[in-house]
Amino acid sequence: MNRAVVLLSGGLDSATVLAIARAEGFACHALSVDYGQRHAIELDAASRVAKALNAAEHRVMRLDLSALGGSALTDRSIAVPIGGVKSGEIPVTYVPARNTIFLALALAYAEVLGAHDVFFGANAVDYSGYPDCRPEFVQAFERLANLATKAGVEGRSMRLHTPIILLTKAEIIRRGRALGVDYTLTISCYQADAEGRACGLCDACRLRREGFAGAGLADPTVYYATPV
Amino acid sequence: MNRAVVLLSGGLDSATVLAIARAEGFACHALSVDYGQRHAIELDAASRVAKALNAAEHRVMRLDLSALGGSALTDRSIAVPIGGVKSGEIPVTYVPARNTIFLALALAYAEVLGAHDVFFGANAVDYSGYPDCRPEFVQAFERLANLATKAGVEGRSMRLHTPIILLTKAEIIRRGRALGVDYTLTISCYQADAEGRACGLCDACRLRREGFAGAGLADPTVYYATPV
Repeated sequence: MNRAVVLLSGGLDSATVLAIARAEGFACHALSVDYGQRHAIELDAASRVAKALNAAEHRVMRLDLSALGGSALTDRSIAVPIGGVKSGEIPVTYVPARNTIFLALALAYAEVLGAHDVFFGANAVDYSGYPDCRPEFVQAFERLANLATKAGVEGRSMRLHTPIILLTKAEIIRRGRALGVDYTLTISCYQADAEGRACGLCDACRLRREGFAGAGLADPTVYYATPV
Repeated sequence: MNRAVVLLSGGLDSATVLAIARAEGFACHALSVDYGQRHAIELDAASRVAKALNAAEHRVMRLDLSALGGSALTDRSIAVPIGGVKSGEIPVTYVPARNTIFLALALAYAEVLGAHDVFFGANAVDYSGYPDCRPEFVQAFERLANLATKAGVEGRSMRLHTPIILLTKAEIIRRGRALGVDYTLTISCYQADAEGRACGLCDACRLRREGFAGAGLADPTVYYATPV
């Protein structure tokens, strides 16, 4: 069985991507990053999801991006915005270069494993406008990966899979449900509480809730606030 | 004064690059990574170099790549090779995706600082054949950086400077000496001892020693073994 590295945050998107990678027949090595995120509780969700979807392994790497700050997700003095994001604007929940860093770590892990496939749950439809979720970013990273690594130099190409990048949130949920993903295990909220309950107000909550509505499914999320 | 992030390992090349960035008028924010390297003593050298060359700041980020392994520099069960590297072969001292990771961290730091310039001491002449030191890798990373970040999206380009990439080691040393770099502060050896003395046998030592010889300068390195 071919090995793949799957970036797993503990949220809805990456859980779906792990299910897709498994369905494609890969032995999946899930990678999460403990980066000083406000919602570190998502790492517990990642662990549950990796187990439920039979990942071959689940690793959590530590890297303290809160030492750099610059984002509402890593700097507790910056509030998580509620009530929607302005179109065309990159919100303060953007973590500088986060996906570049995560993909670089996934690439390192893949190279050590001898794997040539990395799965990444970027989405450029129902998303918050982060630059490092767009198809052109993904293509540029795949190109880089093939220049950066021993495998690339030796002519064995590194592939970066983004199977949900052009799906709506509703489509992602339907796809995951069809593959048996239990979304009660996942946490999307940027400010989930210690029990993993969601605020219902941040952009991640809004996109998730609208996704379940769009898919015609009951939202299984437990909230500590009342959704607006 | 414009700010720049300078990746600083503590070795000869990155010290020279810091001196060049200073000479170009940048306020330099030096970044080192404590990645579980065998020669962690190089971080002490980085600190000395940052101070001597008047960096505005010196940060050390921690990221344990030894948890992944796969390199003689992070896995103590793999010996550092001595006596030269075969041409066309990537040696076991290659750390999978290391420079991609370091540049991603530098990019994050630059973005938080509002800086648009990153300096990186890659060299593709007197080097060990690592794929992530080549000009095509550097170009691909700069392209990625402009797609990955808020600055790039907003039309303010991110520049990746590699001022020594096409210089010989002797040329690098001459350049650094002309800019006042004190190479006794630097450590290049992959297996330097706790006092910072060099083995004189590994590839990094060989390249450094030949560089001083080529520059017609006395090698200031203190060795614990006799160079072959």
